[in-house]
Amino acid sequence: MRTAIATVSLSGTLTEKLTAASRAGFDGVEIFENDLLASRLAPEEVRERCADLGLSIDLYQPMRDMEAVPEEEFSRNLRRARHKFEVMRRLGADTVLVCSSVHAAAVDDDALAARQLSQLADLAEEFGIRVAYEALAWGRHVSTYDRAWRIVEAADHPALGTCLDSFHILSRGSDPKAIADIPGEKIFFLQLADAPLLAMDVLQWSRHYRCFPGQGGFDVAGLVRHVLRAGYDGPLSLEVFNDVFRQAEAGPAAVDAHRSLLVLQESLGSVELPGPVVPTGVAFAELVTPDAEPVSEVLGALGFARTARHRSKPVDLWEQGEARVLVNTGPAVRREGTGLAAIGLESPDPAGAARRAEALLAPVLPRRRATTDAPLDAVAAPDGTELFFCATGRPELPDWRRDFEDVAHVSHVADTAYVAAEPGVRRIDHLALVQPWHQFDEAALFHRSVLGLAAQESVDVADPYGLLRSRAVANGDGSVRIVLCVGAAPRDDTVHAQHIALATDDVVAAARRFLAAGGRLLPIPANYYDDLAARFEFADGELETYRELGILYDRDAHGEFRHCYTRTVGRVFFELVQRDGGHRGYGAQNAPVRLAAQHLTGG
Amino acid sequence: MRTAIATVSLSGTLTEKLTAASRAGFDGVEIFENDLLASRLAPEEVRERCADLGLSIDLYQPMRDMEAVPEEEFSRNLRRARHKFEVMRRLGADTVLVCSSVHAAAVDDDALAARQLSQLADLAEEFGIRVAYEALAWGRHVSTYDRAWRIVEAADHPALGTCLDSFHILSRGSDPKAIADIPGEKIFFLQLADAPLLAMDVLQWSRHYRCFPGQGGFDVAGLVRHVLRAGYDGPLSLEVFNDVFRQAEAGPAAVDAHRSLLVLQESLGSVELPGPVVPTGVAFAELVTPDAEPVSEVLGALGFARTARHRSKPVDLWEQGEARVLVNTGPAVRREGTGLAAIGLESPDPAGAARRAEALLAPVLPRRRATTDAPLDAVAAPDGTELFFCATGRPELPDWRRDFEDVAHVSHVADTAYVAAEPGVRRIDHLALVQPWHQFDEAALFHRSVLGLAAQESVDVADPYGLLRSRAVANGDGSVRIVLCVGAAPRDDTVHAQHIALATDDVVAAARRFLAAGGRLLPIPANYYDDLAARFEFADGELETYRELGILYDRDAHGEFRHCYTRTVGRVFFELVQRDGGHRGYGAQNAPVRLAAQHLTGG
Repeated sequence: MRTAIATVSLSGTLTEKLTAASRAGFDGVEIFENDLLASRLAPEEVRERCADLGLSIDLYQPMRDMEAVPEEEFSRNLRRARHKFEVMRRLGADTVLVCSSVHAAAVDDDALAARQLSQLADLAEEFGIRVAYEALAWGRHVSTYDRAWRIVEAADHPALGTCLDSFHILSRGSDPKAIADIPGEKIFFLQLADAPLLAMDVLQWSRHYRCFPGQGGFDVAGLVRHVLRAGYDGPLSLEVFNDVFRQAEAGPAAVDAHRSLLVLQESLGSVELPGPVVPTGVAFAELVTPDAEPVSEVLGALGFARTARHRSKPVDLWEQGEARVLVNTGPAVRREGTGLAAIGLESPDPAGAARRAEALLAPVLPRRRATTDAPLDAVAAPDGTELFFCATGRPELPDWRRDFEDVAHVSHVADTAYVAAEPGVRRIDHLALVQPWHQFDEAALFHRSVLGLAAQESVDVADPYGLLRSRAVANGDGSVRIVLCVGAAPRDDTVHAQHIALATDDVVAAARRFLAAGGRLLPIPANYYDDLAARFEFADGELETYRELGILYDRDAHGEFRHCYTRTVGRVFFELVQRDGGHRGYGAQNAPVRLAAQHLTGG
Repeated sequence: MRTAIATVSLSGTLTEKLTAASRAGFDGVEIFENDLLASRLAPEEVRERCADLGLSIDLYQPMRDMEAVPEEEFSRNLRRARHKFEVMRRLGADTVLVCSSVHAAAVDDDALAARQLSQLADLAEEFGIRVAYEALAWGRHVSTYDRAWRIVEAADHPALGTCLDSFHILSRGSDPKAIADIPGEKIFFLQLADAPLLAMDVLQWSRHYRCFPGQGGFDVAGLVRHVLRAGYDGPLSLEVFNDVFRQAEAGPAAVDAHRSLLVLQESLGSVELPGPVVPTGVAFAELVTPDAEPVSEVLGALGFARTARHRSKPVDLWEQGEARVLVNTGPAVRREGTGLAAIGLESPDPAGAARRAEALLAPVLPRRRATTDAPLDAVAAPDGTELFFCATGRPELPDWRRDFEDVAHVSHVADTAYVAAEPGVRRIDHLALVQPWHQFDEAALFHRSVLGLAAQESVDVADPYGLLRSRAVANGDGSVRIVLCVGAAPRDDTVHAQHIALATDDVVAAARRFLAAGGRLLPIPANYYDDLAARFEFADGELETYRELGILYDRDAHGEFRHCYTRTVGRVFFELVQRDGGHRGYGAQNAPVRLAAQHLTGG
């Protein structure tokens, strides 16, 4: 199916928007009137620019409050329409959107509406233009798609059809089933938007909170199914008003938008994409740092051993149980200081995973170049984190591990720190990635659609200097867990670092060992433990141990969660995590205490 | 009356919050539990810190879902309560807030609720604590203040009273009248918050959009009147959850908060402040600049003449009609480059205006120091703009004009530019001030309460890179008009400059003169004029003239508005404005076109 996007969905000048839409792979655009008015390009030049970019102009919506109004008002409307049709001729746009009137003087009279729309269609026909009539959810009298369709049906004019908009239909809770009964050729246009399920004034909801399909709570695919059943064969066109997207860069936002339509079409069976290849584990987390020393000290104290070194690059492999951390002192492209730059994901089919990612518009990274290197499939996530699809220990596939040469077990810390038999880190429990402010919805959709992970509900977390939002994505057995988080507004704040959470069977022992090896844990205020004592009952001495070490505690219906944090190095810190009884959380309840403690200690 | 604020209303660590509340003049605080839990200070130390700061701890709210629950649940609750009462004893807080239960297991049984609350009050009494029971607007069974009061009444326990919260009462649209019938001594606490009138889920509304009294749409004062009538003599305590305030600096936010309570008390007649002295005109606008040349060129081309120079400072006075602009090349304290730093407001009583401003916590600026200078009363607005209260040409009062020595009429531009008899600039029409992102609500309250200006509704304005909000404040006859605007999120963007709008009777002549004198106007796209042609009918040639010059046009029920813009100098540009027939707007309809044009030209 053809895809289109309304220019209002993207930020910037008209030409920026058109360029972004074209690069992201859209076939057409709806031109939002204000974008044209504010442009230096004449309509003919816009037409030409679109043609150069391979974009058709599928819709223009320059009119409001057109129909069911007193005659003298309608004459003025027709005069205005003639001007606008002239502009559309210059623009080369052949479909005009007319939304149901919100005018105070609009009359509750469908026959009048049909007659006036018919007159408008007469005029439009002179210009070779079709009129698509749409019910606004807050239209004064016409606010449902079926009523708009009955008016179009009554007018019975070849140049008059209806436009369906998923937001206007689903925000009212209308049943979209009857769409299938509208003759397909009379559905002139289909606008798509999703939205989070908010109980709020529908006009404000529509103007500020729409999002791309799959990012909200509407069953957009279900609606489209009815539209296709009706026989509609026009474009799927995104019209999204969103305060955050308005501030986002147009290029990535257009990619996010087009990805949402690809996923939608896949779910409808109208586009075939390489199937999702769900990762089955975390092969490694890769830190880049200008100085390996501070990170190595923490890893050593945590019980990791430096087991191998890359054959051709300044990259060390640190291991403990199934947890692997690469420390890369090569030149960092993206981040300053020490940061989490890449994640290796165990994949049943690395090449297939990369094919799906590429089909869903993820930037594919060049395979590592050195001849001795395994040619790993890798893509970039929206936040720039590199995702490598790995086949560790599978001889038939390229194995990143083979690029590493074992080193003698020599470490900075005392031998006891890593050879001890006491329970240590078993694997990476989860990775927490701070997202750029505009990309929270995009990141969740990316991880769900590209990686096939399931998303949990997003939760608010109070930081002393603002509210954060956090959302976890995970595979079925929890062996891959990623927590995406974002601040309420852009800020430059090193406290909001990425982190690597390490799973252990005994967080108390692990914490003690870390401290004994010279590690420093984040100190947790004593008041927190007074509250724990009020909320839960503990075995003798248990709470005192937590208090002594700075271990946080939570419990849900599934089990218990105990965790503690190292001090921050650069923009990364580590967490030791003990999950019992199938606890599914990430300590969100404790996050405000952790964040406040990090602010107090400067990380 | 005593004033208090909940620590959750301010950002930062607990000690930052306490310090800010104390400095702003609050008498007490409600300690939000998470703030205590995250603090390094033991409860005794918090108590001591508060005492040092002159703050009482008026309320603590560590409990949820206390009442009307099955017995074993209630036993656990009592156990938790005992722990919390112990903390309160250490804290020295003697009132605990208990909100109506939202627990799924809560029973719809007021007798049970009363019995359990009574048991809780028994326990509280042992600790010398009073229990204040409050209806949450979204309480599972108890969601109205009158029902909460009936339960308290039925329990009839000396240590049990009710807490009233203006948000929970007014957000539900409850009539607060019956409050006056509650015995005053049984109202243990009063929490105040305002909120914009949003039709949305009340829980989300409450958690994210509360604001200080006078900043929203509730009749908070009306509610408080009923509470006072009942005989309540406890503190007025602000409890505001607001995503923006959470990110604002605690110090200024606390001042804003306390100002809101002063204004509230003034309206109740319980505090007497120096009365408002509404300004009657704009005496001058003052630009600071490291280089007078570019600004002088624009002023000269606009028809201004440099008429005088300050006797002791590097400040020039430029005049035209009643419009006066000071160009100050002295060292700028606040802004980089060229910016609007100060506004002179004609005041019937400058000293009185300053007294009111000071009483409402505006920082009073030192009077100009040089002995020859008129000792002008001046304060700083929340955005740092200096406001001078002036008595131009009134011999009995200090007159800023007398500090200036007339200069011969020598200007950079040809003489014709300013001696011409053609209609020129008559006065300053309005000033547009870009507000720091966190201070939009504060700025509107400041201008209303301190200056006695009336605020219009705020409007959204689409910039190509984000949504702006804009709100005008003005005096009765429109001789003082200030437009406050703010972006949707923080950004570093020189396009969003301050501006000075100059009133003229003939914008066409004024624009022509400006261009003839070498001035450069902001170019407006031709498409804008095609749209004007569709929307309005014009006299022959009128539209062509606007198109040629870049004049924008709007019309409302009151009359017409024509305006055009100069190019930006530093962070300031000028607007020429022709208002006819009492038009009251500011060209908000045209603002997106102007903003896009400014982005295209880099200002």
